[in-house]
Parts: sequence; C-alpha cells; structure tokens
Amino acid sequence: MSEQRFHHIGMFDSGIGGLTVMQQVMHVLPYESIIYFGDTARLPYGNKSQETVERYSIENTIFLLEKRIKLLVVACNTASAYAIDKLRHTFNIPIIDVIKPGAEKAVQMTRSGCIAVLGTKGTIQSKAYQTSITRLLPEAEIFPIACPLFVPLVEEYLIDHPAARLIVKDYLTPLKTTKVDTVILGCTHYPFLKNLIQEELQSDICFVDPAATCAEQVATTLKQHHLHTSQTKPNYSYYVSDDPDKFTEIAAKLFQQRIDCSKID
Amino acid sequence: MSEQRFHHIGMFDSGIGGLTVMQQVMHVLPYESIIYFGDTARLPYGNKSQETVERYSIENTIFLLEKRIKLLVVACNTASAYAIDKLRHTFNIPIIDVIKPGAEKAVQMTRSGCIAVLGTKGTIQSKAYQTSITRLLPEAEIFPIACPLFVPLVEEYLIDHPAARLIVKDYLTPLKTTKVDTVILGCTHYPFLKNLIQEELQSDICFVDPAATCAEQVATTLKQHHLHTSQTKPNYSYYVSDDPDKFTEIAAKLFQQRIDCSKID
Repeated sequence: MSEQRFHHIGMFDSGIGGLTVMQQVMHVLPYESIIYFGDTARLPYGNKSQETVERYSIENTIFLLEKRIKLLVVACNTASAYAIDKLRHTFNIPIIDVIKPGAEKAVQMTRSGCIAVLGTKGTIQSKAYQTSITRLLPEAEIFPIACPLFVPLVEEYLIDHPAARLIVKDYLTPLKTTKVDTVILGCTHYPFLKNLIQEELQSDICFVDPAATCAEQVATTLKQHHLHTSQTKPNYSYYVSDDPDKFTEIAAKLFQQRIDCSKID
Repeated sequence: MSEQRFHHIGMFDSGIGGLTVMQQVMHVLPYESIIYFGDTARLPYGNKSQETVERYSIENTIFLLEKRIKLLVVACNTASAYAIDKLRHTFNIPIIDVIKPGAEKAVQMTRSGCIAVLGTKGTIQSKAYQTSITRLLPEAEIFPIACPLFVPLVEEYLIDHPAARLIVKDYLTPLKTTKVDTVILGCTHYPFLKNLIQEELQSDICFVDPAATCAEQVATTLKQHHLHTSQTKPNYSYYVSDDPDKFTEIAAKLFQQRIDCSKID
C-alpha cells in the first residue's frame, strides 16, 4: 500500500467549532487535504464525563482512520483535555491537540504571569490547560473559569445580545481584581464572543486562540514525519453525525462559507 | 411467564427534565413502580434531527423493555413530537406521550382560542402540538415559539438571572400583540422558568404543564389495559447513560430530592 493513499489530515470536533481550527490549518498548509468530522448527533461534549468523551473520541478517530488519514487533529478542547492520552495510547498516528499549543502561546505572551483559561466544564475540570501551563511556567498564576453558556449563545448566534453581555460579565467577575493579562479562549466557539469579553475586561488583554498555534504544530509535525503532501490541489471533505443542512446553515452564518457535508450513520 | 413480572412503568427523557413527569405520575399513581432513564450521554434532543431522535428513542425503549416494563411514557417533548409514531409502530406496548395530553388541556383552558406553544426547535418544527390542537379545536389560533436557550439556562440553574429575563423577553415578544390566554410549556425544563415567563406576559395567562395531564392519561391507560398494580410498595429506579453524579446533583437543586442512579453503557 503506497503512502500516497494516506494523504489527508483528519480532524474532529463535537460540532462546528472546530472549523476555526480547520481554517487556520488551511491557511498555514494550503496544499494539504483535510477531512473534517463534526459529531453533531452527540454534541455538546463540554458537560459530559471523561469516560464518555474518551469513548466518542475513539469512535470518531476510527471513522477518520477508515478514511486513511495520515495525521489527526483533535480540534475540540474538551476532547483534547479528556481524551488525548487515551487516543495517543490507542492509535499509531501523529495526534495534535489544541491544549498544548494554546498553553505554549499563553506562556509566551504573558508579562504578569497571570493567565485566565476560559473553557467548558469538562476542559476546566480536567485541569489540562492548568497542567500544561504550569509545566512551562511553574510560577504562573492561573484563573480557570468554566463558561457553560457560551456555546449555546454562539450556536444561537446571540453574540451581540444584551443577555450574552450579562453572562460574559458574570463569568468574568472573578478576573476583575487580578493581574491577568492573557486570556486563553479554550473552546472553539469562544472567539466569536471575543469582542464582548474584551469590552468586559476593558484593558490591553492578550487573547490566545489555540487554533493558530495548533496549525503551526500540525505543519511542524508533518515535516518531522515526512508526511507533507506532494500534491498541489487540496481536497476538503466534511462529515457530520446529524443534520448536515443545519451544519451548512450555521457554517454560513459563522464563517460566511458554503460547506456541503455528508451524514454518516 | 406471569404478568406480574412486567410490573414497572418505564419512562425516558433526554436528561433530567422528565423527572417533572415522573413526579406527577408518582402523585397520581402512588403504588406504581417506575423505571426512569435519562439519556445524558446524548442530550440535548431539542436541536437534533427527527431521524436521530427516532433512533435514540427506539434504543431507549429497547433498554426499558429489557427491564420488563408494562407501559412506556415518553417524558421528553422532542421525542414525543418526533418519534411517537415510530415507537407505536415498532413496539407492542401502550405508549403515552406528553404532546397529546398537553394539547387537550390547552384546548380545555383557552377562552380566546389563542394558544402559545413554547418548545425546543425540534418540537416546534415537528408541528406536533399545532396538529394536535387543530384536531381538537380547528379554529384555534396557535403561536409556536422555539426557545432553544431555555434548557441551558435551567441546566445552569440561572432561572432568576437577569440574562434569563432578557432571553425570555426576546422570545416572547411576538406574543405581546396577540390574544393568547394559554401557554403550553412544551419542554420539561420550562416550568422552572414559569415565573419569568409570567412576569413578562403580565396578564392572567393560563399555563399548561403537560406533565400533570400526561399522568392522568397514564392512569386511564393502565386501567383500560388492566395493568394497574396489585402491589402496595412502589419501587423507583433511575438510570442514565452518562455521569450519574451530575444527575444526582442537578436533581437535588431542581427537585430538592436525593436520587441515586446507575450508569448504563
């Protein structure tokens, strides 16, 4: 079997948010073909247990491996936080997550050493960001905040709604009296609320969207493993486990992009 | 095989909301044993497609049938709206939904003939309430409103939060200029927002929580089929597909009730 047959990057998320990661990878690696899978039949992952998120992540990876991917990107923060060890232990393929790149970027950017991590309940409870940051900067002071309503607000496209503003205000109150100068947007939906978050914090906060750093990591890893493509025309395919029309509709709103996707059983 | 072995009522919901239905059934039928299943690994159902909700409903019913239930209550509005025909067509057991009882009650209560239906996107799109109401009262004027953020607000227990008030206000704006006198709370989570909804509508609106009428329907059906219990001590069991501890925690908050449940695979 020639290596040529394994020429796609595989990527999964619980739903649509991972497209932010895909866009960054497309930007950094414009010739690489990508297969994206959104597990829309079982989303969201953010409030579910580690055991369940691990099981879903393994099933998603098996689906992508059957499509002959050469490298896997776990584009979902909750899945990266809960399932990355299990995935690396189970599958013999390079696997990139979004947590480690996000933590690295935050450590590079902070001047005060005070970093806030915004994420789903699962991401925050897993302590994955906290552990990665502390490993790089042991004296870091970390402020983890679970923001469970951010995903439904973004999914409903209420990103400028006064209710969204109140909820952002509420969640960020604990940061008011800190020296936090860097905020990790630790869920692929959160960049859509960046303006509201910025207004609430009212200072020169640096935002870390792990997607960009993750894409650089994908490029480095492909090079290390001599897996980069020799093709010049990339191919993009999209799969979901439920309701491709809704995926297309939200993608059009959030990304101003026409995406045709297929439903798997 | 004696009939005695099939002595439980089975009931499923996507998560915890169906406990409102269970409480009503316990109240109306205090000697009946009940098995409750909350599909917490795949919730919510409200934004998912009919095909997926049907598949989940069939799987949940098979799980309950294996526990030898004598009657099934579909305690989830979205599953009732999307899957009831498929379930009745597939399984040879009396099946009670929450839509028909809710529609009947609303038609009994309205004086103006103007009825609002609040529900998930799935429930509203299915037109199940609209069809049931029109069948009973062809001249009814129906105002269906999808309220996708109500479930996350209740799950986060933000039922008095100013943001919840703003979202309620937004969703109910179309009712301001109508003669609606009856509002169906067409999702098991919505009764927890009843106070906010009532304040917003500022009039003598009648609320229909389908749970109570559903429980009466269960009693009637058991009697019709000679399935009512001869026991005097009921037994209640609770199963979930993910995170029993979280289920117990939210049940304690919403229902001031200690519930021990088991996780199924």
